[in-house]
Amino acid sequence: MSLNVAVLGATGAVGAEFLQLFDRRDFPLGELRLLASPRSEGTRLRGHRVEAVTPDSFRGVDVAFFSAGASRSREYWPHAQAADTVVIDNSSAFRMDPQVPLVVPEINFDDVKPETQLIANPNCTAAILLMATRPLMDLGRVTRIILSTYQSASGAGAQAMAELETSTRAVLNGESFTPSALPHPYAFNLFSHNTAIGPDGANEEERKVAEECRKVLGRPDLGFNVTCVRVPVLRAHSLSVTLEFDGPAPTLSLARDAIDAFPGSKLVDDRGANHFPMPIEASGAEDVLVGRLRHDPSNPNALCLFACGDQLLKGAALNAVQIAECMIKAGYLKTRARS
Amino acid sequence: MSLNVAVLGATGAVGAEFLQLFDRRDFPLGELRLLASPRSEGTRLRGHRVEAVTPDSFRGVDVAFFSAGASRSREYWPHAQAADTVVIDNSSAFRMDPQVPLVVPEINFDDVKPETQLIANPNCTAAILLMATRPLMDLGRVTRIILSTYQSASGAGAQAMAELETSTRAVLNGESFTPSALPHPYAFNLFSHNTAIGPDGANEEERKVAEECRKVLGRPDLGFNVTCVRVPVLRAHSLSVTLEFDGPAPTLSLARDAIDAFPGSKLVDDRGANHFPMPIEASGAEDVLVGRLRHDPSNPNALCLFACGDQLLKGAALNAVQIAECMIKAGYLKTRARS
Repeated sequence: MSLNVAVLGATGAVGAEFLQLFDRRDFPLGELRLLASPRSEGTRLRGHRVEAVTPDSFRGVDVAFFSAGASRSREYWPHAQAADTVVIDNSSAFRMDPQVPLVVPEINFDDVKPETQLIANPNCTAAILLMATRPLMDLGRVTRIILSTYQSASGAGAQAMAELETSTRAVLNGESFTPSALPHPYAFNLFSHNTAIGPDGANEEERKVAEECRKVLGRPDLGFNVTCVRVPVLRAHSLSVTLEFDGPAPTLSLARDAIDAFPGSKLVDDRGANHFPMPIEASGAEDVLVGRLRHDPSNPNALCLFACGDQLLKGAALNAVQIAECMIKAGYLKTRARS
Repeated sequence: MSLNVAVLGATGAVGAEFLQLFDRRDFPLGELRLLASPRSEGTRLRGHRVEAVTPDSFRGVDVAFFSAGASRSREYWPHAQAADTVVIDNSSAFRMDPQVPLVVPEINFDDVKPETQLIANPNCTAAILLMATRPLMDLGRVTRIILSTYQSASGAGAQAMAELETSTRAVLNGESFTPSALPHPYAFNLFSHNTAIGPDGANEEERKVAEECRKVLGRPDLGFNVTCVRVPVLRAHSLSVTLEFDGPAPTLSLARDAIDAFPGSKLVDDRGANHFPMPIEASGAEDVLVGRLRHDPSNPNALCLFACGDQLLKGAALNAVQIAECMIKAGYLKTRARS
């Protein structure tokens, strides 16, 4: 079996990862259609010509990965739907729609049904947090998650990644630089996540992390205290996490075993060598790295950890491709292949 | 009145700040003696010749600022004591000694007595955390502090600052770089604080923050959950903080007023402009910047904030100079002037 695939937003930072993942994971690729805005038309990516997306772009496409922002997802989903194309959407457009499953395959692929045609891919920080913490949720009932993030440039797109490099070079050369992709200087600096602040004081990213994790876990009661910060790192997010349980926290030995055993999470927790998860080791890796496991001295029911995950992979393209792979395995995508 | 002053560790990152602060704050400087290890002898700093420190270096010195590491402090304190020199020690050598006051002048200058000859300057992260949170402690009884840090290169010394710049330049030029000042690659990366991990899983920096804050505040019962992380920023530390109170958290309006009113803390909390504390704005500033004040949605008794402070200033040299200034004002240093 091979599937006709479209990538909407092929020229973005996440788009480029899809192409690499199809190769690396031997995705059963039939025809590949790379779609983007008209201004990218004619660009060539790994030998494929980029086409301008139109309402007709999805004819004959079995599965489309959308990664061009929420407004494009809202605009093109009806056309994909009409073409009987399964859409895995990396934007925030449909994540909180009760009709649309929001999926991390290792956690809740069961939310996808044979007839599901639209699946939402979680926010990058939510996906990485879920991979790091879900293994520990089998060891006790978690009641509250306290999270401070160290988020990379890639979450703000390819232009932000370029701006981090360009502005850093300028600062090192003693030259001035005016940011355009991000609202604040980024070289050797950090800042509160650049999304709008709501009346409760939380920014949009912080709200997404809390509500999306609740939906994926099916735990609307789970408490969240989230602080999202952008740091001058290129493509992996890091998370400082405290998990509070409704009783004594699990032992470190059980916690380590649980992380080791969970597919997609990897324990990096060498106290002697002071070696814990780092963005440079998470970058390009499919696993989310988890370490610095320790008890919270201020709360016997709490456990602390530090995690890093590639924002463009498990935080975006990899999770989306894994959803498709699980759908193939379950026979859900095959049944949709054009007749 | 003018005072004869020595700076031990004059060639370090903190040492350089002392010289600038003496000028900027019109410190009543008599003779200035710059002391360092023999290998720096003869170096000139702002017109002063650096001398190799010896047991005799403190003769005739009224106040000495020690900033050359804990072992040098332990080695030279007895000589300074014998010379009747007041020592303000920036190292960790004496901070937890019950005989030695550990002082942030805005908080506990009362711990210094007329006869005090040795005063400890807190760890940089502790000092910045205290400046950001002490104002809020008048609004209710804080029972627990949850902290994740974003610590700059300067806390690891001048060589680490240089390594951040050099390694970043190398990465941008596609060249390889082997770290020497720090255990891990630093360019566009971050890592768990490079101090030894104890049996409880906390590193030395995390232990210092908890125990030193407890001592400065006179609150041995205060709970701490601390995660210390080194980020690729040059000289200001950032802190993501949750304060838990023993009852409902104070209103944001009261919290903002308390920070505004506290000397040395400055409110930077513009939600509309998404403008909150940032290292580049804290660098070179004497005030600790505090913002992102909001209630914790997972605990009605908790308040969140984000703070940035210059590691070399309030985190080190400035706090030490302020201790001396308060001692002068209180008449404690004048009474010790050589007779």
